[in-house]
Amino acid sequence: MYRTHNCGELRKSDINSNIIICGWVQRIRNKGFLIWIDLRDRYGITQVFIDSEKTSPEVISIAKSLGREFVISVRGKVIERQAPNNKIPTGEIEISVENIEILNKSEVPPFTIENESDGGDELRMKYRYLDLRRNPLKNNIIFRNDLTFEIRKYLKENGFIDIETPYLIKSTPEGARDFVVPSRINTGEFYALPQSPQTFKQLLMISGFDKYVQIVKCFRDEDLRADRQPEFTQIDCEMSFVDQEDVISTFEGMVKHVFDKCLDYDLGKFKRIPYTDAMERYGSDKPDTRFDMQFFNSSEKAKGNGFKIFDDSEAIYGFNVTSGAELSRKEIDSYIDWVKRPQIGALGLIWIKHNMDGSIKSSIDKFFDADQLKDLTNSNPGDISFIISGNKKKTLTQLGALRIEVAERFGLRNNGKFDALWVTDFPLFEWDEDSKSYHSMHHPFTSPVNGIITDNPADTFANAYDLVINGNEIGGGSIRIHNKELQQQVFSILGFSEQEALEQFGFLLNAFKYGAPPHGGIAFGLDRLVAVMNQDESIRDYIAFPKNNSGKDVMIDSPSKIDNQQLDDLNIKLK
Amino acid sequence: MYRTHNCGELRKSDINSNIIICGWVQRIRNKGFLIWIDLRDRYGITQVFIDSEKTSPEVISIAKSLGREFVISVRGKVIERQAPNNKIPTGEIEISVENIEILNKSEVPPFTIENESDGGDELRMKYRYLDLRRNPLKNNIIFRNDLTFEIRKYLKENGFIDIETPYLIKSTPEGARDFVVPSRINTGEFYALPQSPQTFKQLLMISGFDKYVQIVKCFRDEDLRADRQPEFTQIDCEMSFVDQEDVISTFEGMVKHVFDKCLDYDLGKFKRIPYTDAMERYGSDKPDTRFDMQFFNSSEKAKGNGFKIFDDSEAIYGFNVTSGAELSRKEIDSYIDWVKRPQIGALGLIWIKHNMDGSIKSSIDKFFDADQLKDLTNSNPGDISFIISGNKKKTLTQLGALRIEVAERFGLRNNGKFDALWVTDFPLFEWDEDSKSYHSMHHPFTSPVNGIITDNPADTFANAYDLVINGNEIGGGSIRIHNKELQQQVFSILGFSEQEALEQFGFLLNAFKYGAPPHGGIAFGLDRLVAVMNQDESIRDYIAFPKNNSGKDVMIDSPSKIDNQQLDDLNIKLK
Repeated sequence: MYRTHNCGELRKSDINSNIIICGWVQRIRNKGFLIWIDLRDRYGITQVFIDSEKTSPEVISIAKSLGREFVISVRGKVIERQAPNNKIPTGEIEISVENIEILNKSEVPPFTIENESDGGDELRMKYRYLDLRRNPLKNNIIFRNDLTFEIRKYLKENGFIDIETPYLIKSTPEGARDFVVPSRINTGEFYALPQSPQTFKQLLMISGFDKYVQIVKCFRDEDLRADRQPEFTQIDCEMSFVDQEDVISTFEGMVKHVFDKCLDYDLGKFKRIPYTDAMERYGSDKPDTRFDMQFFNSSEKAKGNGFKIFDDSEAIYGFNVTSGAELSRKEIDSYIDWVKRPQIGALGLIWIKHNMDGSIKSSIDKFFDADQLKDLTNSNPGDISFIISGNKKKTLTQLGALRIEVAERFGLRNNGKFDALWVTDFPLFEWDEDSKSYHSMHHPFTSPVNGIITDNPADTFANAYDLVINGNEIGGGSIRIHNKELQQQVFSILGFSEQEALEQFGFLLNAFKYGAPPHGGIAFGLDRLVAVMNQDESIRDYIAFPKNNSGKDVMIDSPSKIDNQQLDDLNIKLK
Repeated sequence: MYRTHNCGELRKSDINSNIIICGWVQRIRNKGFLIWIDLRDRYGITQVFIDSEKTSPEVISIAKSLGREFVISVRGKVIERQAPNNKIPTGEIEISVENIEILNKSEVPPFTIENESDGGDELRMKYRYLDLRRNPLKNNIIFRNDLTFEIRKYLKENGFIDIETPYLIKSTPEGARDFVVPSRINTGEFYALPQSPQTFKQLLMISGFDKYVQIVKCFRDEDLRADRQPEFTQIDCEMSFVDQEDVISTFEGMVKHVFDKCLDYDLGKFKRIPYTDAMERYGSDKPDTRFDMQFFNSSEKAKGNGFKIFDDSEAIYGFNVTSGAELSRKEIDSYIDWVKRPQIGALGLIWIKHNMDGSIKSSIDKFFDADQLKDLTNSNPGDISFIISGNKKKTLTQLGALRIEVAERFGLRNNGKFDALWVTDFPLFEWDEDSKSYHSMHHPFTSPVNGIITDNPADTFANAYDLVINGNEIGGGSIRIHNKELQQQVFSILGFSEQEALEQFGFLLNAFKYGAPPHGGIAFGLDRLVAVMNQDESIRDYIAFPKNNSGKDVMIDSPSKIDNQQLDDLNIKLK
């Protein structure tokens, strides 16, 4: 037996116990005849105390030979600490050493294993196994474990069955971003890794498993952006004999449950907003609703006043920022520069200060008098209003991005608050200008509201819903079509012949012939959920071994070349 | 809302309730003015009753139009059943129909959805989603879900952390059976799918997560044999600061827990046997210990009696079969033929009948008298003894196979009993005649017993252990080496230079430099565990969507060709 206790559990009540603990040397203070060692393991830190008058010379010599991150076993007696440390749970005791055994030495680690490390990003990625010893990362991984356990528990109690679907599946023509896997035995053929278990969960509904869950890895060979991973984890769920309300209430319950259990946070009843309103009021289909700053629409009122930019604009939208009237000219200019950056692409930004004394100062003073500006913005004294105009879709999106930037600079985000929102009634179809055709906004099995597709497909809304927390899309799903004729109609709007539909979705369409129940579901991004619950925007530190922005694992040096023999066996060669 | 109840929950206490249930039409009995429908969902079957005198003509006409596997919704009142069916939990009630809605029609399914289906294996694999509607398969999948939940619960309560390791990892030179994944972004480079998360779980121990678990898919591109799957699920575990006893007791506890919770079966304290004894007494490293039939060793006694076959043999082993003396000559011959098949490869089989009257009849009467034969076999009246001789290793293996075959024919297997056994003290190295070198029996990080490698490496035993239940290897693991010098010694016995070791295990060896704790672990084959707990030998029906023996999923037709554009994007081409 290596240990009787871990480094986080000894308390005053253990005083006089003979114990053995194991761990890593966090810190050594050597005052000559007195030596203190902070011994660390997953559970905490315990102080080890060596009094050279009471300890054998052998043990003292071992203690003096220790370095940072050595793995040792300490046998001794729990004693009361003369100078208690109330910052740690073990701070009232220390271990009076009888023996120390070095279980393993350590070279000097390439960076400090402290809450704030001195190692750069790249170095810490290369030595990820050491970075994971640091409390912030360690706690993230433990939090993730607690979260998935509570999710599983909630769903088990609600009758969900965890069913594993295959990882080696079939590539589909539209699966341009599939990772593929050459088959050695079936020469010239390939499996594909799933982008999601979508078709399999629908097949499971046809099989009669009416409540399915799987916490499952998904794969997408996308051009990587910051904070995207080629492999990511989904909480994938599907239910039968349900409508949208059933799905929403089940999973609102789940999310409330995990916030309660893991954060002791009451999310309250989730807000809801239709997609069109979200775009109109926040310029985003995943608005951050921790703060207000909803848009006003001045498209009508602002025109016809001789200001050509407005007169030529399809849409004129803005929002008011409380306390914004205090912004300096320089600060305002930096917002103007910000929206003009190519990533945002606005041509300009109109601002209107509503000073505390009721006076108005604006970049469009020449065209509008104070009352007109107050009427346009409906602002309060102390506000600044920001207005963007132009093409409606672009204007809303640009203003939405600005709204987040303003909130960021005003400290309205990452403030310990959580706000959960269902975005509903997404359009069923999106018109694609390039291909001059409709695409499914969600996927082609998503059902229209009330089961009816309107004469103008673009005006048809879907039984689709996203869960947004703090401006992050945490999950999304839909009620699926289970009626053959309706499915046919959708395919024909998407421009698929019956033949083409069969080629792409053959086995699923075939399965639909044999009694498909009404069904629908949702999938959550687990990595994102964990990050958002920790008020974090980046998912990387919630994954034990993530890849970098080039899809590389620099710790194991992957991907990498493989030898010719292996290529030969797979019947492929490099181009 | 689609339903108020499911098809498995209504009871006598619900009589007079107005309910709605949904499900699939299992069976219709139409007696003209009375119609009964068995409505099935995941939870059970409820009988629906239509009395044409009390039901609207529209509903009757709908009822008459129904076919097998139609999905319907039934609104009605719970009434007492005139002829109760005590075989099903809902057998005391039925539903008096008010309305029936067809939610979806079904074509006639290609085979019957009954406990015993009329569909052949291949047809049922193609329509797996229909096969999964049948109770035996459905129950397997639900059992698997219950099992994994209990495993997670036990391990959570014991402080284990569920940590996801990556699926896109690095191929290693010895990874000839790796599935590889071409990277589109990193041209000419490949990821590999993990054969197991072995290195990652060891890295997690170095990170300080002292108790790790993951229920995880693993991949092996092996030539497929019956009952092997290219993707399979492991319960993968690792612990730090533990010795073999700690690991064994933790996981004996886990297995006992799940047998208790899922089967209400007390496995008792597990037996233990060293590898060498298992081979010597059962001719197998995974003996079925539900029955006895241990081997006797006649290698000494049987020689020197003028029977050339024995005299020329390295080893002579046998076992006694209770009641075997009743076997007919024809039955005995069929055993002789069985061991001579090329799969077993024995040259012959000696038999000795010890009749109830004490007399002896044997195939070697000419060379041995009755007393000699009784002395060789130590058999009891009523037994038959089977003896095989020749090369020791082959003899033991052949006799081990025969032991299982005899048990099978005598009905000693799959009898509702479970017997769990730890096989320990495996050899650390195996001598490979082809390459004239040692190989690791487990893997090169497995530690030797007492940390010492004996002068003759072949005589060194490992801190390695397998869990065997009913003759199936359910799990296996080892205590790893954490000492650099010992690791170096193992590599040198395996014929690796330091350089070669670094190339193959580079990042793990590097990690070992920074304070690796003593650690060890185990991995269980989940598919196998579920099958064995259901007294089944085949794993396929415990996986929702398995592949066939050619690694193909005939339902989705995978693997399959991919188009040239996709190959181009990946910078590979077919040979």
